[in-house]
Amino acid sequence: MTVQPPRDGATRKQHVLHLLASEIDAWVATADEQGEVCQIPLSFLWHDGRLVFATPEGSATGRNLARSGRVRLALGATRDVVLIQGTVTAVASADLEAAVGDAFAARHTWDPRADTAGKAGSYAFYFVTPLTVQAWREANELKGRTLMRDGAWLV
Amino acid sequence: MTVQPPRDGATRKQHVLHLLASEIDAWVATADEQGEVCQIPLSFLWHDGRLVFATPEGSATGRNLARSGRVRLALGATRDVVLIQGTVTAVASADLEAAVGDAFAARHTWDPRADTAGKAGSYAFYFVTPLTVQAWREANELKGRTLMRDGAWLV
Repeated sequence: MTVQPPRDGATRKQHVLHLLASEIDAWVATADEQGEVCQIPLSFLWHDGRLVFATPEGSATGRNLARSGRVRLALGATRDVVLIQGTVTAVASADLEAAVGDAFAARHTWDPRADTAGKAGSYAFYFVTPLTVQAWREANELKGRTLMRDGAWLV
Repeated sequence: MTVQPPRDGATRKQHVLHLLASEIDAWVATADEQGEVCQIPLSFLWHDGRLVFATPEGSATGRNLARSGRVRLALGATRDVVLIQGTVTAVASADLEAAVGDAFAARHTWDPRADTAGKAGSYAFYFVTPLTVQAWREANELKGRTLMRDGAWLV
């Protein structure tokens, strides 16, 4: 296995923005008040500097997102990771701006606003504002992995 | 995008065992007592029915694993996932059975027992015993996704 030389910050940031615009799913990790963790893949839309997710508001992830307002996201592969820590704003389907709902539905060929089949109740939308962003491929990229802190790009 | 027909339980179990034997990394999600989540990729060894991880005992993940004794793992891709919920047993490097440490080092060309460079202290090993295992590709496989419950295979 060949390990590539480490990328500079600007190259990593470009890669992060590329993944945000092109990936369709992210790993979403949340916890409840007892510290019980939930980790699932969810589809997202990158919209106006935020990641938009939809999940049933009664699901473990939905409840954790609404309660804690915090989330950890992972994009990409385990040897080419983008990790995002962010704050969450929950929006009921009925209150969602139509343009965002339409963009989400178009991207995923699936409109959560019209999906009422789930046993965990109707879908809500969750807007994640990135606070911390890290990106690395291998151990030689651990140095310089933090690209955003407190919501501000460092590169 | 073509969605494949749903697989039966036996096929999914076979896929899980294949990933456990062939994958080198897993997404590891843990939480602290305040419900703050950590989600990182870590290398693992599948050994005797357990996943073996190594991480600095002073790192967020190391502390969470030792404190809570619980973890969520994800293997594979977001559209071909294997999710594992398990219990954790922490073992200090000095107390590790030599055969396990040797197998880990051989698999990853890296021996955490000899790695003292990290600022989060020396490495410990974490044995994860799966309690719940789920596997699905797309929405049409959500039914029948649970393959192990309470540590027992259902298929």
